[in-house]
Amino acid sequence: MIYLAGLGPGHPRAMTREVRQCLNEVDVIVGYRPYLERIRPVVDSGAVDLEPGDIGQELQRAHTSINHAAAGKDVALVSGGDTGIYGMAAALFEAADRAGGTVPSLRVLPGVSALNAAGARLGAPVGQDFATVSLSDHLTPWETIEDRLYHAGAADFVVVLYNPRSSQRPHLLSRALEILRQHRASGTPVGIVRNAYRDDEEVNVTTLASVPVERVDMVTTLVVGNSRTRQQDSWMYTPRGYGAGTP
Amino acid sequence: MIYLAGLGPGHPRAMTREVRQCLNEVDVIVGYRPYLERIRPVVDSGAVDLEPGDIGQELQRAHTSINHAAAGKDVALVSGGDTGIYGMAAALFEAADRAGGTVPSLRVLPGVSALNAAGARLGAPVGQDFATVSLSDHLTPWETIEDRLYHAGAADFVVVLYNPRSSQRPHLLSRALEILRQHRASGTPVGIVRNAYRDDEEVNVTTLASVPVERVDMVTTLVVGNSRTRQQDSWMYTPRGYGAGTP
Repeated sequence: MIYLAGLGPGHPRAMTREVRQCLNEVDVIVGYRPYLERIRPVVDSGAVDLEPGDIGQELQRAHTSINHAAAGKDVALVSGGDTGIYGMAAALFEAADRAGGTVPSLRVLPGVSALNAAGARLGAPVGQDFATVSLSDHLTPWETIEDRLYHAGAADFVVVLYNPRSSQRPHLLSRALEILRQHRASGTPVGIVRNAYRDDEEVNVTTLASVPVERVDMVTTLVVGNSRTRQQDSWMYTPRGYGAGTP
Repeated sequence: MIYLAGLGPGHPRAMTREVRQCLNEVDVIVGYRPYLERIRPVVDSGAVDLEPGDIGQELQRAHTSINHAAAGKDVALVSGGDTGIYGMAAALFEAADRAGGTVPSLRVLPGVSALNAAGARLGAPVGQDFATVSLSDHLTPWETIEDRLYHAGAADFVVVLYNPRSSQRPHLLSRALEILRQHRASGTPVGIVRNAYRDDEEVNVTTLASVPVERVDMVTTLVVGNSRTRQQDSWMYTPRGYGAGTP
């Protein structure tokens, strides 16, 4: 059996009970190296084999998990956050597809994703309909990403940006913000959360015109408000519209 | 202090440790009646006061929480799923705004939302950029909802529908699916998850042309695939594009 498990954000206190139990009941845990380090405090690593993998090796980790399961082992294939949101769940299905199309016995255990965690740190920025866009053009053509940003802006979605800025493509974040500014005021609140639930967590609320793009990196999540989003003290929130006349 | 806590989907095993701890350390828990029933197994209700509220009384629950906090109590104001995603977090900020604009001392504890839980039950439907739209026109004008559906369809977002069908407005779901079909093939996989993590959980994968709208209700989450989403056995997944040439 393969368990696709989402570990949640940076600290085990934001992990679900079923994921914690799963990690202690399987034979092998396969995952990106830093995630395996993160779970050491909650896993008896004498009883469970840890198989760390490197970034960019997602399909390989999926194949490794399929092979272990075929040999009769119970495997947890882990992701940070939620395995379904830019995590390993899709990679496992793609790997199974390539390996002949039969999906192995599996169970998906959801987790708290970066959008939930960043939202919590900022207040209630995602109080309304939202769109989530990864700015990584490694797996998606940049034209598709631009198109999605354009439509998300046009429809007044709150926009959550994952993988906002890589060192290889630093200019893409500026371009993305430029697209959103076609439909949104420069004073629109933008929340910036780096390393949520870790010791070096950083939380800032700024505006669409003032995002310090050079300080954003791949462990940062950005939440761009919609036309109704407000800053209040150090918080950011988007009214759902409980007040009469403010739908 | 007010803790805005997301309980996760229907069973406490999908709750985070910090939420469980919080529920056992506060003086009062305020929440929609069925959610308070759900947490009884994990809360020592001899030590904590439970204050149930009714649907439609969200602002009132927020004010109740603010009043308790002002009187020196620690309060957990709970939501199903994630408090930030169509939950009580935005309501608390709106209530504070009306009560004079000062945000009380608070901490937001994220949870596993319906989109994470439904995604897990379906496989990996949200493997790519996605948009989340509530079909409830109670707080958002229907024209705005239509516009969001149109743009989400045009940009090939996977679309997660919350509150998909109320008894007062049963036709809106059909209209929503009609809008998505402007940009998406009738064979596009659609996942339907009812009561995730509850004893009467139901999971189905169908197509955009075949959604049994009359069997959908407000405790159902729908996930409409994008142009690349596939059905495989009883699963639904959207490739991220690890295979060469399939971005």
